[in-house]
Amino acid sequence: MAHFADRLAEAVEAKGNPCCVGLDPLLEAIPAPLRDEAAGPLPLTCEAAANVLRAFSCAAIDVVAPKVPAVKVQAAFYERFGPPGYQAYVDTVAHAKRRGLIVIADVKRGDIGSTSAAYAEAHLGGTTVDGAELFDLGADACTINPYFGEDGIEPFVRQAVRRDRGVFVLVRTTNPGADRVQNLSCKGVPFFMRIGALVHEWGRQHVGRSGYSCVGAVVAGTQPIDAEKLRRLMPQAYFLVPGFGAQGAGPAEVVRAFDARGRGALVSASRSVLFAHARAPYDRQFGPTHWREAVALATDAMVAQVRAAIG
Amino acid sequence: MAHFADRLAEAVEAKGNPCCVGLDPLLEAIPAPLRDEAAGPLPLTCEAAANVLRAFSCAAIDVVAPKVPAVKVQAAFYERFGPPGYQAYVDTVAHAKRRGLIVIADVKRGDIGSTSAAYAEAHLGGTTVDGAELFDLGADACTINPYFGEDGIEPFVRQAVRRDRGVFVLVRTTNPGADRVQNLSCKGVPFFMRIGALVHEWGRQHVGRSGYSCVGAVVAGTQPIDAEKLRRLMPQAYFLVPGFGAQGAGPAEVVRAFDARGRGALVSASRSVLFAHARAPYDRQFGPTHWREAVALATDAMVAQVRAAIG
Repeated sequence: MAHFADRLAEAVEAKGNPCCVGLDPLLEAIPAPLRDEAAGPLPLTCEAAANVLRAFSCAAIDVVAPKVPAVKVQAAFYERFGPPGYQAYVDTVAHAKRRGLIVIADVKRGDIGSTSAAYAEAHLGGTTVDGAELFDLGADACTINPYFGEDGIEPFVRQAVRRDRGVFVLVRTTNPGADRVQNLSCKGVPFFMRIGALVHEWGRQHVGRSGYSCVGAVVAGTQPIDAEKLRRLMPQAYFLVPGFGAQGAGPAEVVRAFDARGRGALVSASRSVLFAHARAPYDRQFGPTHWREAVALATDAMVAQVRAAIG
Repeated sequence: MAHFADRLAEAVEAKGNPCCVGLDPLLEAIPAPLRDEAAGPLPLTCEAAANVLRAFSCAAIDVVAPKVPAVKVQAAFYERFGPPGYQAYVDTVAHAKRRGLIVIADVKRGDIGSTSAAYAEAHLGGTTVDGAELFDLGADACTINPYFGEDGIEPFVRQAVRRDRGVFVLVRTTNPGADRVQNLSCKGVPFFMRIGALVHEWGRQHVGRSGYSCVGAVVAGTQPIDAEKLRRLMPQAYFLVPGFGAQGAGPAEVVRAFDARGRGALVSASRSVLFAHARAPYDRQFGPTHWREAVALATDAMVAQVRAAIG
């Protein structure tokens, strides 16, 4: 395999857009016809719920795979159904890989070093015992949390470098309450800029031919001014930019996360694409039966908007 | 059920000590005789590895259950073996509950609100669809990460309040690299103290009869001066104090996390107890065959040291 950032850049070029569809399969929002068929007879069990998540995720992947370079799989919506849900998470990642996509495991893990090493094996592949590899999720990258600092991050970076995978470290998140933590002023500099400087430091030795590192950053699309500052601070970090659509970021906002050549960022939309059949403007034209068509149109619309914005 | 902090305080009183054994079952450190027997014929698979984790975790729980009020189950060491490992995590929590222990799911999850709600269902129980509960891990509490701020924390707190469970929010961690993040000066106050103030605010409306909240804090035993400051800042937060033993905190350090009456903290040791058979002073007397005796003695020693320190 090649360097993660190079593979991502190539996938973006091949598909002609830097868009990512987020798989956040909230069971309750999954279209009823698919849900009822995949669940089988009531009462609903964890196994049946996992079957629904698997069927929906794989079907959505099939719709978006020809259109975008990457998907992001949100582990939480699978984990809530216990071990069967966890199996559906693994199966979803495997299906997306079979369809040729770059897959980001959105797990936001982080711990002290020895524990982060175990999480890195779990989500960046390569659980190895006595020289034999027992497990590889197959994801190309995962999201991680910087609260523990460098030695909590290092095992993920080491695993990424060793296996040509990537990490996206949380820097600036999309949620409204983030400011009271991430925007605390640390000697005149917002806390998230301090974290950004650390991420830059952690990643600058691991830059690929594309000019980007396998140590990337999660940078909210909803905070364009901050994204611009972070872009300058971290010129070699690929940005994963969530928040497009349902969370309020539009093309004019997310464009700030890109470099001058329109590269270096991957814009992600989850609910606005995945559940487009239940949202304006698609809800009138489509309904739960034709949800695939709504996903396809919403993906096309996102791709067109982002392409127009980055020029 | 009663309020989480009250149940924890009662369990501490019933056992006569505020100690917690951390189940961090690194497969490679598990005594060979148990490992070989539980794994069955080679080659080792994820299913076999999960059987080893389950057998070892349950056996360790059986040893410590009469001695301590609580165990902490570290999800990462199970997750690295994929879905079978995740099943062993669930089974370990269930076994500890059957043995009457307070169980802390050490998962350090955290995300934007809608995603945190899914994680809260996954680890604080109560995945409910159409009014029916499909999954309850059964843990009494879980650890969470504050990077997202209040709206990332709130779904966990809500679930904890609703189901008489608890959360421990990361405030000050034990690892050497934590300082460059957690000790950043924010207008003259260390970042971790800012987080501590937020945790106090999030928890003060949820205080039980014991005087403690179901919103607790992870406070490193290895940072006694910080623990003392945080104790004053957060008088109603139960502290989960990791780092006793292998990570370097002794009785003189962890005692700073307790209130004036010797209450309000739970001291946790993982490797120094779990793998005592391979560590001084127990490695000479015991070996891999008699690891249970080593766990028992190491637990007794920890209990005696912590009791003596808090008086």
